[in-house]
Formats: sequence, C-alpha cells, structure tokens
Amino acid sequence: MKQVNVGLVGYGFMGRAHSNAYRQMPRFFPDVGAVPAMKAICGIPLAGVKAAAPQLGWESYESSWRKLVARKDIDLIDICSPGNTHAEIAIAAAKAGKIVFCEKPLANTLREAEAMLRAAQRARVKHMISFNYRKVPAVTLAAELVRKGVIGQVYHWRGTYRQDWIVDPNFPLVWRLQKPLAGSGALGDIGAHNIDLARFIVGDISHVCGHLTTFIKKRPKLSAVATGLSAKSSSRQMGTVTVDDAAIMLLRFENGAIGTIEATRFAPGRKNYNAFEVNGSKGSMLFDFERMNELQLYLRDDPDYAQGFRNIMVTEGVHPYVGAWWPAGHIIGYEHTFIHEVRDLMEAIGKNKMPSPNFADGVACQRALDAVERSNKSKGWVKV
Amino acid sequence: MKQVNVGLVGYGFMGRAHSNAYRQMPRFFPDVGAVPAMKAICGIPLAGVKAAAPQLGWESYESSWRKLVARKDIDLIDICSPGNTHAEIAIAAAKAGKIVFCEKPLANTLREAEAMLRAAQRARVKHMISFNYRKVPAVTLAAELVRKGVIGQVYHWRGTYRQDWIVDPNFPLVWRLQKPLAGSGALGDIGAHNIDLARFIVGDISHVCGHLTTFIKKRPKLSAVATGLSAKSSSRQMGTVTVDDAAIMLLRFENGAIGTIEATRFAPGRKNYNAFEVNGSKGSMLFDFERMNELQLYLRDDPDYAQGFRNIMVTEGVHPYVGAWWPAGHIIGYEHTFIHEVRDLMEAIGKNKMPSPNFADGVACQRALDAVERSNKSKGWVKV
Amino acid sequence: MKQVNVGLVGYGFMGRAHSNAYRQMPRFFPDVGAVPAMKAICGIPLAGVKAAAPQLGWESYESSWRKLVARKDIDLIDICSPGNTHAEIAIAAAKAGKIVFCEKPLANTLREAEAMLRAAQRARVKHMISFNYRKVPAVTLAAELVRKGVIGQVYHWRGTYRQDWIVDPNFPLVWRLQKPLAGSGALGDIGAHNIDLARFIVGDISHVCGHLTTFIKKRPKLSAVATGLSAKSSSRQMGTVTVDDAAIMLLRFENGAIGTIEATRFAPGRKNYNAFEVNGSKGSMLFDFERMNELQLYLRDDPDYAQGFRNIMVTEGVHPYVGAWWPAGHIIGYEHTFIHEVRDLMEAIGKNKMPSPNFADGVACQRALDAVERSNKSKGWVKV
Amino acid sequence: MKQVNVGLVGYGFMGRAHSNAYRQMPRFFPDVGAVPAMKAICGIPLAGVKAAAPQLGWESYESSWRKLVARKDIDLIDICSPGNTHAEIAIAAAKAGKIVFCEKPLANTLREAEAMLRAAQRARVKHMISFNYRKVPAVTLAAELVRKGVIGQVYHWRGTYRQDWIVDPNFPLVWRLQKPLAGSGALGDIGAHNIDLARFIVGDISHVCGHLTTFIKKRPKLSAVATGLSAKSSSRQMGTVTVDDAAIMLLRFENGAIGTIEATRFAPGRKNYNAFEVNGSKGSMLFDFERMNELQLYLRDDPDYAQGFRNIMVTEGVHPYVGAWWPAGHIIGYEHTFIHEVRDLMEAIGKNKMPSPNFADGVACQRALDAVERSNKSKGWVKV
Repeated sequence: MKQVNVGLVGYGFMGRAHSNAYRQMPRFFPDVGAVPAMKAICGIPLAGVKAAAPQLGWESYESSWRKLVARKDIDLIDICSPGNTHAEIAIAAAKAGKIVFCEKPLANTLREAEAMLRAAQRARVKHMISFNYRKVPAVTLAAELVRKGVIGQVYHWRGTYRQDWIVDPNFPLVWRLQKPLAGSGALGDIGAHNIDLARFIVGDISHVCGHLTTFIKKRPKLSAVATGLSAKSSSRQMGTVTVDDAAIMLLRFENGAIGTIEATRFAPGRKNYNAFEVNGSKGSMLFDFERMNELQLYLRDDPDYAQGFRNIMVTEGVHPYVGAWWPAGHIIGYEHTFIHEVRDLMEAIGKNKMPSPNFADGVACQRALDAVERSNKSKGWVKV
Repeated sequence: MKQVNVGLVGYGFMGRAHSNAYRQMPRFFPDVGAVPAMKAICGIPLAGVKAAAPQLGWESYESSWRKLVARKDIDLIDICSPGNTHAEIAIAAAKAGKIVFCEKPLANTLREAEAMLRAAQRARVKHMISFNYRKVPAVTLAAELVRKGVIGQVYHWRGTYRQDWIVDPNFPLVWRLQKPLAGSGALGDIGAHNIDLARFIVGDISHVCGHLTTFIKKRPKLSAVATGLSAKSSSRQMGTVTVDDAAIMLLRFENGAIGTIEATRFAPGRKNYNAFEVNGSKGSMLFDFERMNELQLYLRDDPDYAQGFRNIMVTEGVHPYVGAWWPAGHIIGYEHTFIHEVRDLMEAIGKNKMPSPNFADGVACQRALDAVERSNKSKGWVKV
Repeated sequence: MKQVNVGLVGYGFMGRAHSNAYRQMPRFFPDVGAVPAMKAICGIPLAGVKAAAPQLGWESYESSWRKLVARKDIDLIDICSPGNTHAEIAIAAAKAGKIVFCEKPLANTLREAEAMLRAAQRARVKHMISFNYRKVPAVTLAAELVRKGVIGQVYHWRGTYRQDWIVDPNFPLVWRLQKPLAGSGALGDIGAHNIDLARFIVGDISHVCGHLTTFIKKRPKLSAVATGLSAKSSSRQMGTVTVDDAAIMLLRFENGAIGTIEATRFAPGRKNYNAFEVNGSKGSMLFDFERMNELQLYLRDDPDYAQGFRNIMVTEGVHPYVGAWWPAGHIIGYEHTFIHEVRDLMEAIGKNKMPSPNFADGVACQRALDAVERSNKSKGWVKV
Repeated sequence: MKQVNVGLVGYGFMGRAHSNAYRQMPRFFPDVGAVPAMKAICGIPLAGVKAAAPQLGWESYESSWRKLVARKDIDLIDICSPGNTHAEIAIAAAKAGKIVFCEKPLANTLREAEAMLRAAQRARVKHMISFNYRKVPAVTLAAELVRKGVIGQVYHWRGTYRQDWIVDPNFPLVWRLQKPLAGSGALGDIGAHNIDLARFIVGDISHVCGHLTTFIKKRPKLSAVATGLSAKSSSRQMGTVTVDDAAIMLLRFENGAIGTIEATRFAPGRKNYNAFEVNGSKGSMLFDFERMNELQLYLRDDPDYAQGFRNIMVTEGVHPYVGAWWPAGHIIGYEHTFIHEVRDLMEAIGKNKMPSPNFADGVACQRALDAVERSNKSKGWVKV
C-alpha cells in the first residue's frame, strides 16, 4: 500500500473538514491503493496551528507554507487557505514536485487559475480541486444516470445555492465580504459549486448572462462589533461591502441545454441549499443538499398510470461510495463528501492517474465566474 | 341583488372553466352585491356551441361574437377565445358599453393590449383580466403577507412554471405552437402567469434579460397525425414550430429586488407546476400550484431553536375566500380560482369599483413579455 | 337518459356537499346513463330549509322527512341528517320503494345498520352509502393497484385519521360530543372512514383490539357559551363528554394482513388527515387526504439503483374519474369526491346494478366499529 | 483530562460504529472532562479480530471477553456482541469494577436485564445503554421541547420503525431470525428503539396490548444458500423462522397519553424509518430518522393565519450537539449518534455522574418488550 505524506495549509473550517477526511478515509476505504499519512499542518498564528495539530490529528505543524512546501517528507500539499493565497502556494508546490489538492474556487481570478493549471501541467504533478459536492453519492449517481442516457438529452439545468447568514444588516464586514481577500461574494463562494455541478452533470457552458447585486452596501466593521459599540451609535464604524450578496445568471450549454443558476446569501430559511433540477427528453432529476441522501428521479417511460418523481434513498450498497458506510437508510452527512474526495484522490495516486475533478475543472469554473462578472458589466450575454 | 347578464366567447378549456365559475359562484358567495346570469355562450362551429350551451348551463348561444356584443340583454362580455382574437372583441365590447372580462394574455402583442386598455378606459367600462392564480387562497395570502411587511423588504423572486406536455417530439404541431395564432409559446402561455404573480407579490418589474429556446423545431402536422401516417414514414408531413418551447429570464424590480423566471413545456414530471419562492429581509415564502392549498412561510423572528419553513394549510376560515367552502383541511382545486375571480368581479360590479387585476395589469404583463422578446433579440438587458 | 328525482334530507355540511354534487355531476359526467333532478330538500327548522332550497339548487322543500318519503315524484332519498335518524328514514324510504343513499356511518348501532340493510334487501331497492373517500381518484387507483397485484400480497395497513378541532378544552359540548346523538366520537365520525378504506383496499377485517379515550371529560355547555358567561366563571355550566376523543386499534384481516388504525380529534396541525400506508410483498403505497391528488408508490422491482417512493400526481386522463375534469396537474378538491359518488350512483341506476359501496359495506364497517367498542370493554381482542 | 481505557466486545456492525465513535469523539468534543483511549477490541474468530483491531483503530485485541474483562488496564467494557451474550459479560464486567456500556436491547429476556442492572448497582459502577437514537440532535431537541412544555400535555405517541430487508421470501435464515440467538425479531431489534424514544419523550408506559406476526414462516437455511442450491430445488433445506417479522402494539402511558408503535421488516421502501409523531395540548412534533436532521413542529399559538408544521433544520449552533460540527445546513449522519453517546458517556465519567440512558432505561424497555410478548399470548392488555 502506497503511503502519501500530506501537508495541509489552513486549519479553519476547510482545514477541519479535510483533516477529518484524512483521518477517516483509511478506516472506511482501506483498499484503494494509497493511504494518506497526516504529516504536517500549516497555518498562522503559530499558537493556533500548534494547538490545532494534535487536535486534528497531525504529526507536526508549520507556520510558513514555504517551509511546508520545502519539506522533503511531504508528497502532497492540500490548500485550504483563503482564495487569494491559492495561486502562489499551488505553483510553488507544483514546482517542488508535490501533488496539489486545492480548495475551490481554484483562485480569485481566472488569470491566477490558469497559471496554476499551467504550473501543474509543466511540473507533471497530479492535481485535484475540492468540488466536494460532486462526491455526494446522490450527485455522483445523478451524473452517472445522465451519462447512461437515463434521462435522455438534457434540456434544462435549474441550479440554486441559497444561504441566509448575512441577511441581518448588522452582520459585520468579515473577510468574505471584501473583494481583495475573497475575490467575489456569493458568486465565487457558493455559485462556483453549483456551476461545477452543472458542468459535471450537463456539460460545458458556452455562454452566460449574469447579474450581481449587493443589497446591504455598508456593514459594521469587525473592530466596531468587537468593541461593543451600540448598533445605534452614530459613531459606529461602517465599512463598504465590496462583493456581491447575490448572483443570478442564465446559461447556455455547448450541447444545446439552457439553464439558470442563482447564488445568494439572502434567502432566509435556506442554510446550505445547494440544489438542482435537471430535465431531459426522457426524465428529470432533483437534488437538494439539505437532504443529500436523496435523489428524485422521474422517468417518462414508467407506466402511464404510475409516473411520478421517485425519491431514491441513495443509501444502498449499489450506490456510489455507499457500500463502505452503513446499512441502507442509515444516512451520511456533509463531512463524508470530503472523505470521498480523499478516497478518489488516493485511488488516483495508487493507480497513477489524474484525479477528477482537477485544475482543468477549476479553470473551467473560473472561466464561467469570470464570464458572469464580464456580463454583469456589459449587461448582456458573453461567451465563456 | 344586482343581476349581471353574461355573454361568454369560447367553449373550450377556458370556456368550460369560466362556465363552471358562473354556475358555482352564487352558490358559495351569494352576498357580494351582484350575481351573474348565464345568458349566452358564443363559439364556432355552430353545432359545437349549440351542444355546449345546455351542457355548460347557458340560456342561449351565438356563433358570431359580433352578434353577442350587439345583444342588448348582455352586460358583460367574457373572452375565452384564442389570443389573436382578444383585441377585436374586447374593443368592440367596450365600445358597446359592456363590462369586459378577458382571459390572459391580454393580447398577442403589446400594441393590441394597449389598444384594449385605451378602449376600455375611453368607454369607461369595467374591465378585468383572468390571472386566475392570484385567486388561489395561498397566493392571495402570500401577497397580503408581503403587503403587511411580514417578510420585510423583498430581495428575491424565484418563479417557475413548468409543464411537460410537448416533450415527445411526435407531439403534433397544434395551434399553441404557431406564432400567428398563439403569439408566443411557453412565454405567453404560462410565463405570463408567473410574471403576473411576481408583479402581484413583489411589484413592478423595471428590467428584464430573457432567452427563448425551441428545442424541437419540426413537428408532425396535425393532418399527418390524423391520417395515421407512420412516424417513421419519410412522407410524413412536418411543420415548423414558430414559438418558444422554453423561456428563461432575469428580472430587476423597481424596488430593488431581483428575480429569475422560467417557463417551460419541457420539464418531465411537472404537470402544472406554477411555483415561486420569495425571500425578504424578515422571511421567505414558498408556493407550488400542484399543492395549491399550502403556503410555506419562514420567519426569521421565530425562536432561534425553532426556525423552519412552516407549511400552512391555507384552508382555515381566516384565509382568503376559504370561509365559503369546506372545513379546514378539506382542500379545493384548480376550478375554484375561477370562481374566486367571478366572485371578485361581481363584488366590484356591486360596489361600482374597478376589478383587480384588470387590463392595466394585462398591459403591464404584456410589456414584460414584450421586453423579454426584445431582450432575446438584443442579447442583453432591456427596460420594461 | 333516465332522470332520477332526488329528495335530500339535511341541509348542513353534508347536505351542502351532496347538493353541490347533484348540481355538478351532470355537467362533467353527462353520459353515465342517468341524471339526477333536484326535486326537494328536507330539513328543520322550516325557515332554514326554505332559504336553503333555492340557495342549494332544489326545486322545492319539506320540513318533514315523512312527507318527502311519501312524495310520488321522488325516486331517491338521500339521507344527510345525524346518525340517530338514519335507520328510521332509510327503512321507511326502502319500504316506499325508493332508492336510498345514506351518509356514513350507516347508523349509530350495528343493530340499526343491519335492520337498514335487511329493509333495503327486502324492498329490493338500490342502496348506497357515502364513503366518499373511496372516490378520491388516488384512493380508487390504490385499490385498483392492489386488485391487479401490483404491490403483491398485502402485509400491513397503517391507517390514521387525525383532526384537531376540539383540542381546546373550552370548545363547547356540541352534538357530536354526545353519545345519544352521535353514537360515538372520533371512532364513528372519522375512524369509520379509515376502516372503510382498509376494507376497500385490503379486504375484510377478522379481529380487532381497540381502545377509546376521552381526554377532556367536561366541556362548557353550548348555552353557557352562547350566553357569554366567562370561561373563568365558576358558574359556567359544564357538561359531560360522552363519546371518545380518540380511538386506537389493532387489526387482523381475513387474508393474514395486520394493521393499525387511529382516529383522533386531538392532533394539533392535522386538519383532515385521513391517511394510510399499505405494504405488500412487492411494494408499498402511501396516501394522505390533505394532498389528495397524490399517491406514493414504491415498487420492489424497480432497478436496484433507482428504487424509491414515486409521487404520482393522480391527475392524468388515465386515472379514475380524472378525464372528466381538467388537464394534468390541475388539481381537484374535497367536493369532487361527492360528485364521483353521485356519478357512480347514477351509473349504477342507469345500468340497473347495485351501487358500490352500499349498505352491506355500511354494515361491515359498523360491525368493526361495534367490535372496537366491545374490545374496549373486554380489554382484549374480539372477533368482528 | 481524565483518560478512560476502553475495551470493546464485538467487531461487527455495532463494533464498527462504536469504534468510529471513540476515534471521532475527542476530535469534536475535546472538552467534556474525559477522553477515551482505544485499548483493546475483542471478538472471534481470532483472525477476524486481529485484522479488525488496526483497521478500527485499537491498540490490541483479544479473542476472549473474559481476558478482556480481566485486564487491569481496562476501565470500560463496551458490549457490542449479540443479545444472548450481554448479561454474562456485563455482570462479569461490573463485578470487575468496570464501567459498562452495552448495546440494546439490554438483554434477550427481562430476567437477564434485571440481573444486569442489579449487578451494576451492587458494584456501584457507571452503566449506560446504547439507545443511540436519543442522541440525534432533533430527537434530543424534541424531548427538551416536551420537558419545557412547548407542546403542552402529551396526548398521543405514534411510533413506527419500518425496514424492508427480509421481504424477499428467499432471504436466508440468519441469526437475527432465530429466537435463541436474537431473543425476538422486529420487536426487540427495532421496536425497542421506538419504545425507548416513547419513554424518553412521553414518559413511562403503564400498559400495552401487542400482537406479533411472522409472515414468512420458512426460509432457506444459510448453508443451503451458501452452497448455491437452486431456489426451486425441492432438496433445498428450509428452516423455521422463530421470531416475529412484525410487531404492532397499543400503549397507555402513566401520564394519560395513549400511543401506537409498530415495528416491521416488511415495509418495502422503508430502509431505516424510525419515526414518530407526538401530539400535545399545545402542539405537535414529527420526526423521521431517514431525514434525521429535521424536526417538524406545529404550535397552536402561532398566529391563526400562519399555523403550520415548521420544518426545523436541526443544524444550528443552538441545537443539541450541533455546535461541535459544521455550519448550519451541513447535515450529519447516522454515525454521529454514537459519537454523541460517547460524548455523553465521557462527560458523565468526567463529572462522576450516572450516564443517561442507562441500565434502568434498558430494564424499563425490556419490561415493555416482555409485556408485549405476554400480551401477544393473552390476547389482551397487560400491565408493563
């Protein structure tokens, strides 16, 4: 069994999710040809990463990603830091001959993303992007059913990713609301996931027409919040939101299908509602991440008296990834998507193949995001 | 009690639905100030309308709408004939001093629709348009909740109207698929309903960006179908579909909200799925016509441990229109929306007020439809 | 076309529902071989029935059911009065040679019900009982699917009928809460419907074990409520509830299936939730009246990767009764079940056949209700 | 931080689930006062447990539970072996002064269960039973809401636990279908879970009336299956199923509530459908394990126009256990219930308190199971 020594950059939300995946993957998928070893985690401040390392299961820690990349004992660099750092780290890692696994969006700009792909290709290293929603068993199944022609020629994609965590105008100006750090708002943070699912299930997007909106243009600065200044105080420091609160877009696919995608953080009641409906000539499918163990499927060739959306519990042994877990009906959760990513990554390494999705998918997604931003300025359709 | 003598044009699907409404309305809403009398129904061919009249409950019949409009004993002309006939009939009826009640879309073109509104205004007659989905109790309630501020400032409209009756490429080239007769396809037939609901619940639309698609461009002509020529026969007569199979659009509202609307006849499994989700600063609402007796409501100010979309059975006596029907939980259906329309129409007549929605709403909707078509050509946003 | 002259007893809730059915049935089902004529409605007080007759569409009225039964011009007596009056009226009507159509439960006691059946059989008149939920298209379809073997040998019935209209302890002591008038409480009022559905879909019940409960034993008398005495006043007149608030029971069917049925008026949020799930060797079905246009069906022989409950919109032309109504997805409501009853009744009369369900079904249901009451006393299983 | 050295008996389905819980608990709940150390796993055959130990994360292995119990370095014995072994192991462990954590049902008979409780009490050791469904956040929340009076006085419990894994008559005669090994069938295996939830949420059960059924009485012996004898072969060896395929029961609770519970392995389409609805004087709650991250709540004191079951996503930081996991809407799965158990067990050890639920709950559940079996024989109600 090949051992892959991993160095992880970032110990926040994504760092925790990836750490869990490295710990759990070998317990449930022991036979895929490679197994990760949790060598080092990297982050700042030093005190934070020092505490995180044992808590998350890492052998050692670093506070400089350059040191991490320079370590001879590391085979794979996993990048979970903010988007504005991805390109530099990934390119350096590739040049150092490391396998690179990067959180989405691949970068904050298309140019950066392309440079990352080029660097990885030149270095001939394996690369993967963490579009973890592809690894939900129901989503993998949906893509397989399209490939097999079960729903026929695809006509419609109807994607939406809704959250509600910044509806309150007093929610502060965190880094995710600042363009220099986050690149974009709902568009790149969550819209990117749905765009990737559209590509995964329907195919390449040829044209987009998009619109970005910022409903709440000023928010209290974090320092003002921290110091407890009254929300009503005229002296409260306000800052400008520089990213989109919501993005809506029309899509045309290479294969003639059309679609809509919406990403918003202003949909009260929707917590992590990454969802789609896809309609084809033979049937339709429906997915919603908040019920991620289910896939709804409608088939036109069911008997005429008994046609209806069937709600498949995607928890059977025959379903993708599921055999490694629990009996039918014993559902899995969000974190399992990352475990499946690591499983696929290790399998690819073991078989010496390129993982999927990889930086090429990251670039393709970034190209669509970029097109949406161009369309938002030109007020019309643009080619992706 | 004022008696209103009705003359109805058309005895097809809509003619049946309106006839039922006139029969039923006085049984359940006897005290609204006016009551319809079913004087005459008009249609062609003569044999058809002659049979329809007693079956649908009409005292007499005509095969010329001009004769109907000319009859002194008729107070109200109800127009259920195809869209390309609306303008001529409505304008003549208004000039004759009749109340005019017209099916949607108001006309096949914006110019015709505007002419109809002008004619009705000049003649100082009451006019109403049949946007019957406004009269679903759950939809009326949704609009009331927005008016009362229950969900706060509206940010998002997410409308969709999906059907699947022409997915089969062998479905023939009926009149609804021919532009000269139908004006447009999914856009005007069903999209118009959803656009009207957006206006009803959110407010006026300022800009749209739309895209129209025809997935199946050639279909068997009806005659070919009728004569039983084999579907595989090379001699089968095919004709060109001249309307859209599907329409997708982005919206901006006057009040700053944004939205998406989709209308399609290519969504297998969706039979009459006229649905929306609307998000505001304080909450969200969800509606789907296939479960028309329910409205889902999410409120941000519910206790933090108990927030969730509540599924309101809109069948209580306190809900709009419902008190006239059955006890709570005893649901009503599609046809009741027309009964509620006639109720509101009779109430307006009884109180000598302008009914709602009326031709002004019809024109506003037509303006949006027209803007979508312009946008489809210009490939960009247009002002409504 | 045979004309059937109808005399209806009762102008309350059920009287309204039946009147509507007689008015509507010929409009939508004109060709079933017979057509009702709404000759006379009967009820007390005189002022009430006099006003109701024109409002509900009846040619004349009576305030004595004996007079109604004596009328030569009446072919059919429809009984919508309280349960304690059914036997006397039905037996007199049968003796007079009338067709008898009776609301459920057939009677307040098994003895009365049996006498009614005997009287009808002796008089050789047609008889029908109004178990209207059988006439929901989705329920008729469910029964057909069982007959065709689609779900195989039935193992389980899981029935429930929940309402919540008397949860408030201040709800007054209406007639439905008094045994002499109502016979029983939730058991006979709503449990009877679910028991009938169990018989319709699964087959005859052989044994039951039941339990009846009255949660709120004292309630304000109606007079006390009417005179506005304060709810807190110690002088408020309270009366004793003499029927069950809820009934729960275990069932064994002749064919080896087992089941549970529950009827309660103490389930907050459930308005008219008459529902069942039935499991067989090949599949399962699920129905809930609050979504009466839908039937869920699970089939074990679907492909292994795509098994799931399919939600059938029972609104297609191929579904029972539905072709007479509106296009697919345009749902119908509670009142339509009565229209379908009248349709089936008229068809049976036209074809000179016994309608279904009839008094034999009423007696069978009553036998089960009686067994539940006996079981409640004996604290054990009893034979039906 | 107190370290608790764990020895686990059993490496099958439950052994895997518990092992995962010990691995994961300290990663997500580091601060509860105690932390498990995975010292040894025990099972047979030797080859199996030897392979399982490193795979599941244990330091060492044993093939004799007596050796495990005798080890000085073990503080806690976790029993995941079949029910017929529980009593002997648990009593020995208690006598050896170990903390005992035992899978449900506590034992195969009430007598054994009582002996286990007595042994643990005499030895003054901490004891816990693995009723893991109590640790679903939505279920814990449901119990809290009842305690707080949110739904008022409880009237109804409606529990069901449905699976479908033995519907096929060719499914072989596994140990779970043999009374000497399994104790009972659906009743003890899954019914026990629902009975425990009823006790947890409503309170103690006073009387039951139950019925057990075996639909398929003969099944192929495992050896016959393994040797590939044709299903149609007359020489195929068949054996007798000695446990129930399904159990149905009526309940009366000490506090006046009534209930029904059903446990079946013959409900096609239901995979692990452990569900309940509970109705009280102020509201209702609904839960279904297949959507374990959701709890439906109906409140009678919501505004009259806006009452409805609200679907709470129990994934907010304010909800039980959830703060340790992922952001809102990022759901968790089956395995997390065991992690929460271990969390609570460690917290109790850290605080030197008795864990909950414990052997007293196990005995109470067993008493109800025993009463159902007695009732099944006596054909009537029995006192628990």
